[in-house]
Amino acid sequence: MDFQARQKKLREHLSTTRFDALLISHLPNIRYLCGFTGSAGFLLMEDSSSTFFTDVRYDTQAHDEVKAAKVVIARKSVLQALGEFWGQRRKRARAWTIGIEAEHFTLADKKRLTKLRPSGVRLKDAPPLVERDRMIKDDEELVRIRAAVTLGAKLFDRALQVLHPGVKEAEVAAEMEYAARCAGVEEMSFPTIIASGARSALPHGRASERPIGPGGFVVCDFGVILSGYCSDQTRTVWVGAVPEDARRAYEAVREAQQAATDAVRPGIAVGEIDAAAREVLRKAGLGRYFTHSTGHGVGLEIHESPRVADGQREILQPGMVITIEPGVYFPGKWGVRIEDMVAVTAGGCEVLTPTSKDFLAV
Amino acid sequence: MDFQARQKKLREHLSTTRFDALLISHLPNIRYLCGFTGSAGFLLMEDSSSTFFTDVRYDTQAHDEVKAAKVVIARKSVLQALGEFWGQRRKRARAWTIGIEAEHFTLADKKRLTKLRPSGVRLKDAPPLVERDRMIKDDEELVRIRAAVTLGAKLFDRALQVLHPGVKEAEVAAEMEYAARCAGVEEMSFPTIIASGARSALPHGRASERPIGPGGFVVCDFGVILSGYCSDQTRTVWVGAVPEDARRAYEAVREAQQAATDAVRPGIAVGEIDAAAREVLRKAGLGRYFTHSTGHGVGLEIHESPRVADGQREILQPGMVITIEPGVYFPGKWGVRIEDMVAVTAGGCEVLTPTSKDFLAV
Repeated sequence: MDFQARQKKLREHLSTTRFDALLISHLPNIRYLCGFTGSAGFLLMEDSSSTFFTDVRYDTQAHDEVKAAKVVIARKSVLQALGEFWGQRRKRARAWTIGIEAEHFTLADKKRLTKLRPSGVRLKDAPPLVERDRMIKDDEELVRIRAAVTLGAKLFDRALQVLHPGVKEAEVAAEMEYAARCAGVEEMSFPTIIASGARSALPHGRASERPIGPGGFVVCDFGVILSGYCSDQTRTVWVGAVPEDARRAYEAVREAQQAATDAVRPGIAVGEIDAAAREVLRKAGLGRYFTHSTGHGVGLEIHESPRVADGQREILQPGMVITIEPGVYFPGKWGVRIEDMVAVTAGGCEVLTPTSKDFLAV
Repeated sequence: MDFQARQKKLREHLSTTRFDALLISHLPNIRYLCGFTGSAGFLLMEDSSSTFFTDVRYDTQAHDEVKAAKVVIARKSVLQALGEFWGQRRKRARAWTIGIEAEHFTLADKKRLTKLRPSGVRLKDAPPLVERDRMIKDDEELVRIRAAVTLGAKLFDRALQVLHPGVKEAEVAAEMEYAARCAGVEEMSFPTIIASGARSALPHGRASERPIGPGGFVVCDFGVILSGYCSDQTRTVWVGAVPEDARRAYEAVREAQQAATDAVRPGIAVGEIDAAAREVLRKAGLGRYFTHSTGHGVGLEIHESPRVADGQREILQPGMVITIEPGVYFPGKWGVRIEDMVAVTAGGCEVLTPTSKDFLAV
């Protein structure tokens, strides 16, 4: 990963804003900028240097992983180490305005840092600058994302081998997660959703101890983290004899998913992608059952910018990676969702998820 | 769970503070107070009523799960729904000071909420009131924690069946996690640590693709979430022929772990528990290799108050549940950690973790 290039790009923002330095506290942003994968630390980016602060637990790991930044191991708290560092810097600097990540920094941490900061150092809310850069994936990131999506898709094949009436939702998840681990996955990108029967109408129905019954949909929404990057995929299968309304709902969602995918190309606003899916379901008389947004960005985090939702104006650019995942939900009855990941290309988009979307009954 | 009683206790804090209402945003706190297990929502606690706000994705789930609070489903954003609700309340109230959870609320969310709030409504930083109550587990919580710890401990038995030279760290984790899922676990309480050879000297060495080699320690640190409550346990085993310094280090850590456990009783400061472990390792000449704190509270979250660390003054009380986990780490060589969970009782403590701590070579 070209951490130098990423930091250089962020420094270009710095030169056009009112910040003398940026304090990066959000861990995925830290990983993006200097490679650290642990669970505690701060990256201070100044005009011409970067310094990463962490605690003793990560001494060895930080020295191994961190690129393009000096490493400071805090003896006590990391915030205190920051305060001391600023104290030293102050001797050579005039007034100093440090941007803090307002979307992630807590009120309490700001108060603590304000107390530790030397006079002349000002803390000011910064917008999500790193997240904006992260929206556009570089080639190395796309390679990793493709690998994660390909591996993730294999888990659905595994699910189909075990998904039968009488098997518990959690058993299906167990088999998928075991296969994932054996294939080298770091962890699942979110709690696996295997939602059967009336639970398929819950957009977030995590796998439960419920045995899968005949005569209903099973929504399978799952993803892996491989080399730091997330996959996200949903397929929905029917169990048992198929009633006509279930097939109709499925085909409408599939058509909506395809319409949204067909709309993906550089220069279009994400709100229009959402509208394309919504329009299909509205025409099928299912508009009011599509209760969530159409998708979201994916990368180092499972939910990133842009939000692919009604009225959102973010313009698609080559290198963005988003999900397209319309669904319809009938509370107490069942639900359907179909989700692929797609990468925006110069000419349109590349559908990353290889799994068939044909209606499937088991 | 007695949500009414928990809310009543929190309201007693309210009556002694400067807040007219509390806005609970931290999800484990929300779960503790009203039972909601989803991933988005706010609980507003007023003098005589509680209202839970979430979005459409959680419509069914919120109505099923939430107790002791009215449920409001936001049509657009949850923050906006809150603003509108306050607007209505304002017609009957005078000035209103609402406490927000400073340890969790972000600067950006506060700014957004400030814009949506009607005049006369003030937002003020609140200390971690719910976390303080959560430190003391009630009987129902202790039942769940014991069940999680007992189930978690069985995973180590599974690990021992597969842990041999040549097996990858991740394969050991895979077998443990598969067994956990099949036993009804919701998810692991943190990424499983299986750290072998020189990686055992990393206090946070997540299971990797590295094959376990002979002649080193393997640190196994793992936990499950069962009915919402976390377990946390570490055992360290040696692989192959045992050198004398490895056995000595292990026995010193074991003695330190025992000394800290023996010190646990109501009325003692947590810093003294830490000191008890540290003193044993200092006498063994290993003090400087014990680089982290001795433990932490566990419950709905894997890391809760109190911190069992040097100089911490929190006083142990019956119902607190903490880890005791000293370790020593020799960078580039190997490390050892032994961790149990203990519950503070009226007369001392109950060691919850049933697994033997005898030195074990495989």
